[in-house]
Amino acid sequence: MSFINRRDVTIEWGDCDPAGIIFYPRYFAMFDASTAALFTAALGFNKFEMLSRFGTIGIPMVDTGAKFFQPSRFGDIITIESQIASFLRSSFKVQHRVFRGETPAIEAHETRVWARRDPEDPTRIKGVAIPDEVREAFSR
Amino acid sequence: MSFINRRDVTIEWGDCDPAGIIFYPRYFAMFDASTAALFTAALGFNKFEMLSRFGTIGIPMVDTGAKFFQPSRFGDIITIESQIASFLRSSFKVQHRVFRGETPAIEAHETRVWARRDPEDPTRIKGVAIPDEVREAFSR
Amino acid sequence: MSFINRRDVTIEWGDCDPAGIIFYPRYFAMFDASTAALFTAALGFNKFEMLSRFGTIGIPMVDTGAKFFQPSRFGDIITIESQIASFLRSSFKVQHRVFRGETPAIEAHETRVWARRDPEDPTRIKGVAIPDEVREAFSR
Amino acid sequence: MSFINRRDVTIEWGDCDPAGIIFYPRYFAMFDASTAALFTAALGFNKFEMLSRFGTIGIPMVDTGAKFFQPSRFGDIITIESQIASFLRSSFKVQHRVFRGETPAIEAHETRVWARRDPEDPTRIKGVAIPDEVREAFSR
Repeated sequence: MSFINRRDVTIEWGDCDPAGIIFYPRYFAMFDASTAALFTAALGFNKFEMLSRFGTIGIPMVDTGAKFFQPSRFGDIITIESQIASFLRSSFKVQHRVFRGETPAIEAHETRVWARRDPEDPTRIKGVAIPDEVREAFSR
Repeated sequence: MSFINRRDVTIEWGDCDPAGIIFYPRYFAMFDASTAALFTAALGFNKFEMLSRFGTIGIPMVDTGAKFFQPSRFGDIITIESQIASFLRSSFKVQHRVFRGETPAIEAHETRVWARRDPEDPTRIKGVAIPDEVREAFSR
Repeated sequence: MSFINRRDVTIEWGDCDPAGIIFYPRYFAMFDASTAALFTAALGFNKFEMLSRFGTIGIPMVDTGAKFFQPSRFGDIITIESQIASFLRSSFKVQHRVFRGETPAIEAHETRVWARRDPEDPTRIKGVAIPDEVREAFSR
Repeated sequence: MSFINRRDVTIEWGDCDPAGIIFYPRYFAMFDASTAALFTAALGFNKFEMLSRFGTIGIPMVDTGAKFFQPSRFGDIITIESQIASFLRSSFKVQHRVFRGETPAIEAHETRVWARRDPEDPTRIKGVAIPDEVREAFSR
């Protein structure tokens, strides 16, 4: 799984709290967008396309965590490096590494499910097998 | 550490994503408010007071994670149960348990630092010993 | 249109910016929840129910504005008073008044559309007539 | 006041609501970042620098509004064009125009104050005269 996507994100005034550093839930929103960007980079089309092509409702989170080594403040530009750590049958693991310049700032991991509406109960969501086309896009 | 604070939170339309379920970074914002509410309940005054009384800049996150068992959708009311798991010298651990009715929905943990501006470099933040008054407020 | 809904909202740490006052886009999220609460109070069921009963996709915003007289900081509790200013055929106007204690803090207005997916192009949204049941709920 | 700053913003999954379109308070966060980017482009240094150089606490909003002509959904890329509409003594007006491709999507306006902590009561914020250096940066 050597496919890595990198993106730069500017920390905005509105991302920060009264201590002048980023309000950490904002990082998780950035990671969610980074996972979307990782799939876009691998597949060649964006998440909107991805969901409609594969009949998927989304890739909901089942387990996530992050270790913060360095705070960022508004005006900082951070680099988020994202990659798939592993594909299971209907779930997958993502790893994000955040840098401020050369300095490691955060390590985060995610486990997400490839999900559809349950055909027997459309108010419910269930995991389904990840399409081969998706797996293969990451092994190129 | 038997002191537990419970609060009900309504999942709003704007907390939810195109799959109709909560956008998970919103949970971390709810947990941040729950940790603030836990201190308010134990100390008898709110976080604003807490920071100004103890000369603290905040209680920044160094490590957090969550496991999601059940999605919530807008209109749901969830209950967040929060407690201190342990106090170390200048850091502490918090545990959040989320329920939808009787059903466990999420388990989350936090490690946070009791922080001040570094007097030698006010652009930096450093951990300092947690005041006894704070520890004692949770052992009553 | 004398039906008014009032709700108290606590300004959280994560709602505030490095100046220590609320980041104003958060007010609009609070107003969106306040409009939902207004309909819930008038109809007797929540927005999730409302959308599914009336086959509505949402009540998207077409015009909004706010005047801010007083900043709020974290820990403050504000009261938001919301009411329908007028119903048109497929749109309606809402007014929010925010108070800190007795002091007026914000006045805001919204024009929203009662919307459905366009049956001829489900990627589009179009306004439809507001159901009589909804209008009547506000004139009781 | 011909100085215009343009930036492209990708609408992310987490910016959108259960109707699949952007949750409109997110636009105001984008506008806030756009106003910061406008000053950065004119001054040649970012908002963090700007506040520390001029001893300013921020540029709080006193009046804002927006008209929405077209919804955006996740995956869309919008262009935000921002410019100063006028400078008054201690306040200024900003105009944002949003386009999806060539199509106008939103028009928004802001009135903001150039603010400092009140030296007689540091819990209060007051408007002060906008520095000449700032005015001049926009007339080049």
